[in-house]
Amino acid sequence: MPLADTGSLEGITYEELQLAARNHGMPLEGLRYDLTPLGMHYLLIHFDIPPADDTTWTVDIEGRVRKPMSLSMRDIRSRPAVTQAVTMECAGNGRARLHPRPLSQPWLSEAVGTAAWTGTPLRPLLDEAGMEDDAVELIFEGADHGTQDGVEQDYERSLSIADAVRDEVLLAYEIDGRPLPPQHGAPVRLLVPGWYGMTSVKWLRRITAVAEPFDGYQMWAYRLRDRVEDEGVAVTRMLPRALMIPPGFPEFFERTRTLDAGPTTLEGRAWSGAGPVTRVEVSADGGVVWDDARLEPAVGPYAWRRWTFGWMAEPGEHELVVRATDGAGNVQPLDGPWNHHGLANNMAQRVPITVR
Amino acid sequence: MPLADTGSLEGITYEELQLAARNHGMPLEGLRYDLTPLGMHYLLIHFDIPPADDTTWTVDIEGRVRKPMSLSMRDIRSRPAVTQAVTMECAGNGRARLHPRPLSQPWLSEAVGTAAWTGTPLRPLLDEAGMEDDAVELIFEGADHGTQDGVEQDYERSLSIADAVRDEVLLAYEIDGRPLPPQHGAPVRLLVPGWYGMTSVKWLRRITAVAEPFDGYQMWAYRLRDRVEDEGVAVTRMLPRALMIPPGFPEFFERTRTLDAGPTTLEGRAWSGAGPVTRVEVSADGGVVWDDARLEPAVGPYAWRRWTFGWMAEPGEHELVVRATDGAGNVQPLDGPWNHHGLANNMAQRVPITVR
Repeated sequence: MPLADTGSLEGITYEELQLAARNHGMPLEGLRYDLTPLGMHYLLIHFDIPPADDTTWTVDIEGRVRKPMSLSMRDIRSRPAVTQAVTMECAGNGRARLHPRPLSQPWLSEAVGTAAWTGTPLRPLLDEAGMEDDAVELIFEGADHGTQDGVEQDYERSLSIADAVRDEVLLAYEIDGRPLPPQHGAPVRLLVPGWYGMTSVKWLRRITAVAEPFDGYQMWAYRLRDRVEDEGVAVTRMLPRALMIPPGFPEFFERTRTLDAGPTTLEGRAWSGAGPVTRVEVSADGGVVWDDARLEPAVGPYAWRRWTFGWMAEPGEHELVVRATDGAGNVQPLDGPWNHHGLANNMAQRVPITVR
Repeated sequence: MPLADTGSLEGITYEELQLAARNHGMPLEGLRYDLTPLGMHYLLIHFDIPPADDTTWTVDIEGRVRKPMSLSMRDIRSRPAVTQAVTMECAGNGRARLHPRPLSQPWLSEAVGTAAWTGTPLRPLLDEAGMEDDAVELIFEGADHGTQDGVEQDYERSLSIADAVRDEVLLAYEIDGRPLPPQHGAPVRLLVPGWYGMTSVKWLRRITAVAEPFDGYQMWAYRLRDRVEDEGVAVTRMLPRALMIPPGFPEFFERTRTLDAGPTTLEGRAWSGAGPVTRVEVSADGGVVWDDARLEPAVGPYAWRRWTFGWMAEPGEHELVVRATDGAGNVQPLDGPWNHHGLANNMAQRVPITVR
């Protein structure tokens, strides 16, 4: 076994390792399943997983509303329930592949998962509370508490009223038919299909209608900007991405892949938050020649779709590449679009492989 | 957000990061629960998670037996079932805290979890198969396939007959009352309570009785040795370890902790594979003065026990340390016992904290 001082010098920091040991991606074998088995779905937890008592938990709706409400979990569960399959991805997915590497949770390309979430739609609750005419946004406050860039905070994100009243936005309290486990936001979380995961606030305990756009830390942090002092552009919906189950078998440490020669079916999943995925292309030569993969129906309107591609694997060294296009015309780039926070890097996945 | 080239230079490698993104530890908030919520339990997967079809899966018992058997999952589930709470820890837990750092899965101290496993005891199956008089060990073969140090292999580990026929050794097919998810070894795995996790072979498909001790790669790899050429000593049962839920709240990136001054209850869990934990001690000054924590009953004979400690937190900088002692007289060391593979490093956990 080699020692660290003889290893490569990518120089992942101790702080990044601490985050990677807590927050995990989905091993790409998980692309095999329509719904990601519980425990394989990616997780990103900004601060600590808070303790939560289902029997005393409330979600308060307040601020610029005519009738403030305080909902118990019994109230929330007694309301009409919807179950929908949703593909969720971390906005930081792909961050660790950028050069220079922005220092945060060091995702490669595995920060994704698809689950069947059950909850009650948010809009009828907002109708009951009654928005004041000057309300422009809703702030969603979670119970996790910490500091980031020197700002002490409970985790908070906002949505415009128009985004919040979409049919698919839920207060979700079950995943795959079971109560949310602590790490997914128990007892209840916001679920905003199509958007990157930072929007789906976990451990939700307060919804505040406000008359001015919210400028809290997490709104500042999730923006595409070249330099820290730039205003930047808000990160919202997931860009298209296709991922492949790396074929063959791995070497334990290097994770290099070996495959026996012959006909092979490559497979994976593709998704986008901006519209259905309309095309998946595969290259077996590092991105020179591309062929269309076969697309299967999506698991649901807000969930990924499976793709397959028949490949005649010839002995030698190859680099497989896959990229998706969505109905809004977005195509995955071959090189990562660098930005200060390392967000929304949907550069195409590359899988080097030795065929023997 | 800082960039990588301005970060600290611990130099975690890209290969370690790839492993850390797949294999995850239990966020230490998980010490709050008697049974680790599914999805928070640690995972270490050597190669890939294999596809598995419950309806066609068999576990074959063969080799030096009088009556070879091939058991379907229906056969296994129809046999007497036992459910037991088991604390499982990776033998590599603590590896990344060693200097120099052996390169493998870079665990800090979170590679642990406790679950209620259901399965059928192994011994009656072995009795039915009938060991030949010359059988000395059983080889357990999993379905995950890969290469490690140049050795292509299915994951295989052996146990002596005496270790394999202990009452608590199960073929486990449920975790917390549900069928095993793929990443925990679906549809069936070996479960050897008290031993480090490498022994509890996942995706179990063959048990072979042999007349000579097995010398496969994974038997070589899990030995304590100073130099690669040494014979070394086999790693078997878990050494004692106590862990603490870091008190207060974290900074997102550095994971430094801040706590408000006043009376605080520190809490965590402690376990050992060599006997019950008999003592947990806490130091609030980096390991100079130690006081006994209060111990609660163990969750089960093979599971951790909760400990608590009342601490009057005074403003300033502190270093909390916790260590366990087991009934066999093993005490956690304050410094890690370095070895070539970075195994069984049960040095005491240290939690620096700012009290305000």
